[in-house]
Amino acid sequence: MEFDFEILKTDPTGARLGRLTTPHGVIDTPAFMPVGTAGTVKGLTQQALSELGVQILLGNTYHLYLRPGHERIGQLGGLHRFMSWPGAILTDSGGFQVFSLADLRKVTDDGVVFRSHLDGSEHFLTPEKSIEIQQALGSDIAMVFDECIEYPADYARAAGAVKRTTEWARRCREYALAPRNEGRAPMESGRTNAEASTNPGQILFAIVQGGAHADLRRESARQLVDLDFPGYAVGGLAVGEPHALSCEMAAVAAEELPKDRPRYVMGVGFPEQLADYVRCGVDMMDCVLPTRNARNGCLFTSAGRVNIRNAIYADDPRPLDERCSCMVCRTYSRAYLRHLFQANEILASILNSHHNVAFFLDIMGKIRQAIAFGELAEFSSEFQARIEAGES
Amino acid sequence: MEFDFEILKTDPTGARLGRLTTPHGVIDTPAFMPVGTAGTVKGLTQQALSELGVQILLGNTYHLYLRPGHERIGQLGGLHRFMSWPGAILTDSGGFQVFSLADLRKVTDDGVVFRSHLDGSEHFLTPEKSIEIQQALGSDIAMVFDECIEYPADYARAAGAVKRTTEWARRCREYALAPRNEGRAPMESGRTNAEASTNPGQILFAIVQGGAHADLRRESARQLVDLDFPGYAVGGLAVGEPHALSCEMAAVAAEELPKDRPRYVMGVGFPEQLADYVRCGVDMMDCVLPTRNARNGCLFTSAGRVNIRNAIYADDPRPLDERCSCMVCRTYSRAYLRHLFQANEILASILNSHHNVAFFLDIMGKIRQAIAFGELAEFSSEFQARIEAGES
Repeated sequence: MEFDFEILKTDPTGARLGRLTTPHGVIDTPAFMPVGTAGTVKGLTQQALSELGVQILLGNTYHLYLRPGHERIGQLGGLHRFMSWPGAILTDSGGFQVFSLADLRKVTDDGVVFRSHLDGSEHFLTPEKSIEIQQALGSDIAMVFDECIEYPADYARAAGAVKRTTEWARRCREYALAPRNEGRAPMESGRTNAEASTNPGQILFAIVQGGAHADLRRESARQLVDLDFPGYAVGGLAVGEPHALSCEMAAVAAEELPKDRPRYVMGVGFPEQLADYVRCGVDMMDCVLPTRNARNGCLFTSAGRVNIRNAIYADDPRPLDERCSCMVCRTYSRAYLRHLFQANEILASILNSHHNVAFFLDIMGKIRQAIAFGELAEFSSEFQARIEAGES
Repeated sequence: MEFDFEILKTDPTGARLGRLTTPHGVIDTPAFMPVGTAGTVKGLTQQALSELGVQILLGNTYHLYLRPGHERIGQLGGLHRFMSWPGAILTDSGGFQVFSLADLRKVTDDGVVFRSHLDGSEHFLTPEKSIEIQQALGSDIAMVFDECIEYPADYARAAGAVKRTTEWARRCREYALAPRNEGRAPMESGRTNAEASTNPGQILFAIVQGGAHADLRRESARQLVDLDFPGYAVGGLAVGEPHALSCEMAAVAAEELPKDRPRYVMGVGFPEQLADYVRCGVDMMDCVLPTRNARNGCLFTSAGRVNIRNAIYADDPRPLDERCSCMVCRTYSRAYLRHLFQANEILASILNSHHNVAFFLDIMGKIRQAIAFGELAEFSSEFQARIEAGES
């Protein structure tokens, strides 16, 4: 199956209803991608992911490189086979993690020296190395290695990151397209080399940087568009800036990006924010929020957030979210979920993660439906109103 | 649905193929009951338990009494509704836990004073209290409160425990059968009082004690049979004594018990031991081994035990057990299971528990099949031979 992106409808707000075709299935967009950091979406079996209708999930290059190692996964047939996941996979480049998780030692134009958060061992990650890892993992969508900066970052620092990110994107593209076997022609438009990857259909997305500076975001997008990638992400958002500013940066970048390529905002967002990004013309999002918060007992519902450890739920026979039809809300009471959390039971993490992921996927399904019917603005205001009314 | 026990076939070895009918479904015997300590079989959803074909599971009175509290569960409709489990449930009496887990303060003929392992609070558990708790939980099968002793225990101590256990069994039966509402007649044969329980069909099993002393085991069984219970357990086994001695005690007790009532050996056993108890005429067993060991990375297979953290599995693409057809063995490799365990992922506990429980249930299914075909001895020797050959 070849990579393809088709826009089925565009909403007056700028939102797009689409269909992304990958070697591992079709993805309805706008799509929310659950995060499977270390080859598993924490708390969910692959069977549960399938039942939830997940079409694409995210794997973390940094984590998988450190443990169990990309070469091992490559020899075992790639990440799809390793984790027995038949759907699509997007891998990040490791950039965000080395800049945020690891003990960062040195950043040069060549790459990044860091120490593993697991055992303190020293590693050197370059654009080429990131692609090599992602080719061994064999994801359907690989990401370029980018320089991630903090918020706020001044103009000079953000401009430097844009420059380096473009140069690294060029090197990633070149490495991905370079023939590994003599006599093979390079491939087109950011599609990686079949000989080098466990997934011959793997494609490469670039990442727009530029901090909170609109003109740098535009400039970053233009430079990357010149390099011609099959898809573009907007990175460095949701790192502490106000939500409105985050949306503004996404919208500014989207304006510069080709309409016929998928757009992905990395690492967002809260349930009530998803439609905002969609209205900026964004097609894909990912976030650890549903699974991470689930493990802490923070559950997302149509009436707002529920902290399930709260004693008010101890005798509450109602489902967590009466408007949700997921397996958890069909089957268990708030009292039971609260008990499981208090008793530190594994089932607490399982059920909480299941519901939160179902909730995010359900929002995206409703957003797609609203775009199809031209009612995205109405959806957003009703969603917001229910959360503000907050009966949980 | 009324309680009923039917023996379909008896093997020359003494093994029985049977069918136990409860208010929450029919149980094919011999049956293995997974342990759902605090209202959840650790690591498994109720959906997974159903898919695995679990017909009955065990709940722990001690744990549920302390947290979330039996009155709370009773008000929420009983344990079945609380944990959303449509199948049968057996509750233990709390005896084993107060004698082993809690900080034991004082044992008298009246009952046991102990401190909670959770918060150190002081509690008083009596035969009557144990039944009151189990009636609130509404299990299908409740157990009498018994005095559990250590191994080895001398004759006088074991004889004392037998005497007290019989007296407590009588008190449990009396309390269970006593009418709570004026004008109601007591019920027959250890069936508990409909007015007092969240499960009107609840029945009560007695527990044979006697340590490792065959004549005390016989005496204990005879005293309990005189009290006429619908089913009998053998308790105080698998507490450190050799397996052969454990089987001898089970067999000696079984000889004294009425043939038409189910027999349950509590807290056993290892996979290769299950058929031995069945040959003693035992119909039901329970054990935490499959789930507890799973969480420690100890997996049971047809070729013996596998410690999945072992580095030899890091690159092993084979299923955990090539003779097992459970979801885990159909879907995932040893390499993946090893990675999940090393990375301390929740999915490690989920998949390991799933396989181990599936493995125990599968053994019991094969034992039932072997009894039906009169081939239990052959099954046991083949099973043992494969484990001793041990190719994992």
